Amino acid sequence: MKRRAAIVGGGVIGAGWAARFLLNGWDVAVFDPDPETGRKVGEVLANARLALPGLSDVALPPEGEIAFPASVDEAVAGATWIQESVPERLDAKRDALARISRCADATAVIASSTSGFRPSEVAADACNAGQVMVCHPFNPVYLLPLVEVVSHDRTDPDLVRKAVGMLDSLGMKALIVRTEIDAHLADRFLEAVWREALWLIRDGVATTAEIDDAIRLGFGLRWAQMGLFETYRIAGGEAGMEHFIAQFGPCLDLPWSRLTDVPEMTPALARRIADQSDSQSVGLGVRELERIRDRNLVAILRALKGQDWGAGAVLNAHDASRMPPVPAVDAAQPIETVERSVPLDWTDYNGHMNEARYLQVFSDATDRFMEVIGCDQAYVASTGSYFTVETHIRHLDEVHAGSRIRVRTTCLLGESRKMHLFHEMQDTGGRLLATGEHLLLHVDMKSRRAGPAAAEVEAELRRIARGHARRGWPEGAGRRVGQGR
Amino acid sequence: MKRRAAIVGGGVIGAGWAARFLLNGWDVAVFDPDPETGRKVGEVLANARLALPGLSDVALPPEGEIAFPASVDEAVAGATWIQESVPERLDAKRDALARISRCADATAVIASSTSGFRPSEVAADACNAGQVMVCHPFNPVYLLPLVEVVSHDRTDPDLVRKAVGMLDSLGMKALIVRTEIDAHLADRFLEAVWREALWLIRDGVATTAEIDDAIRLGFGLRWAQMGLFETYRIAGGEAGMEHFIAQFGPCLDLPWSRLTDVPEMTPALARRIADQSDSQSVGLGVRELERIRDRNLVAILRALKGQDWGAGAVLNAHDASRMPPVPAVDAAQPIETVERSVPLDWTDYNGHMNEARYLQVFSDATDRFMEVIGCDQAYVASTGSYFTVETHIRHLDEVHAGSRIRVRTTCLLGESRKMHLFHEMQDTGGRLLATGEHLLLHVDMKSRRAGPAAAEVEAELRRIARGHARRGWPEGAGRRVGQGR
Repeated sequence: MKRRAAIVGGGVIGAGWAARFLLNGWDVAVFDPDPETGRKVGEVLANARLALPGLSDVALPPEGEIAFPASVDEAVAGATWIQESVPERLDAKRDALARISRCADATAVIASSTSGFRPSEVAADACNAGQVMVCHPFNPVYLLPLVEVVSHDRTDPDLVRKAVGMLDSLGMKALIVRTEIDAHLADRFLEAVWREALWLIRDGVATTAEIDDAIRLGFGLRWAQMGLFETYRIAGGEAGMEHFIAQFGPCLDLPWSRLTDVPEMTPALARRIADQSDSQSVGLGVRELERIRDRNLVAILRALKGQDWGAGAVLNAHDASRMPPVPAVDAAQPIETVERSVPLDWTDYNGHMNEARYLQVFSDATDRFMEVIGCDQAYVASTGSYFTVETHIRHLDEVHAGSRIRVRTTCLLGESRKMHLFHEMQDTGGRLLATGEHLLLHVDMKSRRAGPAAAEVEAELRRIARGHARRGWPEGAGRRVGQGR
Repeated sequence: MKRRAAIVGGGVIGAGWAARFLLNGWDVAVFDPDPETGRKVGEVLANARLALPGLSDVALPPEGEIAFPASVDEAVAGATWIQESVPERLDAKRDALARISRCADATAVIASSTSGFRPSEVAADACNAGQVMVCHPFNPVYLLPLVEVVSHDRTDPDLVRKAVGMLDSLGMKALIVRTEIDAHLADRFLEAVWREALWLIRDGVATTAEIDDAIRLGFGLRWAQMGLFETYRIAGGEAGMEHFIAQFGPCLDLPWSRLTDVPEMTPALARRIADQSDSQSVGLGVRELERIRDRNLVAILRALKGQDWGAGAVLNAHDASRMPPVPAVDAAQPIETVERSVPLDWTDYNGHMNEARYLQVFSDATDRFMEVIGCDQAYVASTGSYFTVETHIRHLDEVHAGSRIRVRTTCLLGESRKMHLFHEMQDTGGRLLATGEHLLLHVDMKSRRAGPAAAEVEAELRRIARGHARRGWPEGAGRRVGQGR
């Protein structure tokens, strides 16, 4: 039998919860008095359907069904999980949970999305407070894994364990907060940063855009993969966490934050931090943590390059400033189309560059060749592009992260509607690593059907093809898989 | 002529600067009295050589030369850029900059890496204070782009412009801080979070590991791509930034942070934030920002999946829990090897799944087939693996982000040392999108040479190959590029 979740409050957070449950196969009932709820939840769902299923490398189960009943009671009846996501006002939260608790199943998880209030505060008027806990998610709820789970002194511990298991099955990660505290853990940090930022804006020190860059081009990248303490553990270098604290502990007396009510850095506190940090990173030396951090950062930065956003846009601009201009082509020689190093995140479990990355490099080589014949970004935007219809790769030798590789490209055939390319990938020592042979068709970008290239593009393509034809076909071209030499 | 940088102080930050300059083609002189400096800088350089060149899609220039002169004077003489990176103590910084300023070229940039002190403080004893500014980087300096550039009232503005251009040429992004302020911008936030975190640890509310998870599984992922304000702009939903402030402004009175000395949220301050946020996101509606955010987050999360770390490890565990068990194979039928959705970040400038991603999916299909015949992780770790030596792909139809795809696999040949596979990729409607034909050799993982598979692996492979052989070769197998039907 399918499980059912009830979402009370259909704003950004409620809609995110609805999407998370629905796409993991639960039926979902959303109640919100706003008559626009159906449309608003629908827009979040549309985003989630694009984003969440492809995040996973295993297909999600078939979607559940979504309903918008007319009352809290209807939404809640028979639900295994009830999520309160009404606006962040204590009276609104209390009332919603009181209402929910009157019609909830006796075995249901009743969870509040509150980011600031303690579970005992929001559960104060609930008739079955033992079922109530805080499960605080992070926007977008359908993508970010973290959920802070906070009990109060009457919450049933067995129900908390059950909730953790269900969050797990939704692809989320429950962080059990040990003690009720205002704003739990994460939002205390967010609130501290928000307050610090308000001072900077009020005093004219920085704008919102400058503050955002100060975050997303620096420590924000670090915090996507390691948090505050593991990052500082590495910063301490070989001397370790105690050294780091000894060095930066005295800074607590300096006016480096508006947060001036600081704890005293006693030897006992320093020891506690160092001990916790040691057990957090057990088995990983600082040098190993550095390598892990670098792989993570390269992977994240390259992901952002692919989106041309934030730090990725900075890197792309730097690449563009150093990209050699398209050369005047000597058609008597293969064309140098790629020269690059193998990124740290391109190796796989076999310890060498993953096979799909060979095609990525050859795809870049094809893009460069297209630029050479005048099929550049402007041409693609206005006229047409070449789509690959067939590919043949020979993987001849291994290559590892950090190695410099280059590709030279021969045009085997160039006509009005098609081109046939042959790429040779070498390392700097001239060792042949792989060849890529590709047939591409010219496509009209409006009809997305094959059609002739613009005359000047075709002319340059034919000129290069004629020149390269005089060299004869390179060794390895024109083969089928498994063909002998 | 190559440019020369002098690095005074060879710790983690100084070594990171040295790597950043060196790998961008500058000659570098590092001075540090520590006799271990050469070794320590060498270890950072080794990490940087693996990580930085491959971050870029364009080859970096040839490396410069590195030297370790015996004095500050020798290091600094003739340098275009001088970077002070001595320990974070005001007297040490002042002394180093006084010493540097006595022997620096009159046109050199003299930059301090200080994270906390103001430029006028560290330049107090410099004889040419007009050349001194703060250029505060973020560890690891060779990967993170951000540099906070802070002048004092005597710093030469032309020299600051020159410094910004040089940082640009190093692939870094200068954030000009408008006003001298303790800890500049970013470290004020870091310090606020650090102080908040110390309270939590002191009071036994959370451990270092819990705090790190509270960051890296939630808002840390957001901050790698958008900062505080653009994130909250989206959280405000359709109602926008003013709505967000109206909703959360009153929370300044709540004890949600130890930072209790808060600015008053006057209408003027709220208006200033909303105006700055509007001009920061000009031309991008909230729905568009949501889609950008989702693409970024999917790309970052998938990058972390590739490293099996942090949020990526959470997602991989979720995948593993849902991966169907390896089936008992009916050798009369092709084997279902992949079922997944196309990730949001797999599309390219042509608006469809990038060609290299087809090979990535076929590579996953091959991995699954290997598991089916008993060549699983344990086998790869102890015995051998299959390396692809040849690939043929037909790209038959377009596919877009969010689409569900599946792959079924036919074994064309299975022998002791090789296997020949044919993958067919379809969408859920049965439309054939692509085929992938692959020849793989069994490799001994110790010698990394071709060798026979284990007997039980070979037996299962032969059994499936015999069964599939009865079906005859599928249409499209055994072709060379450009071959007619």
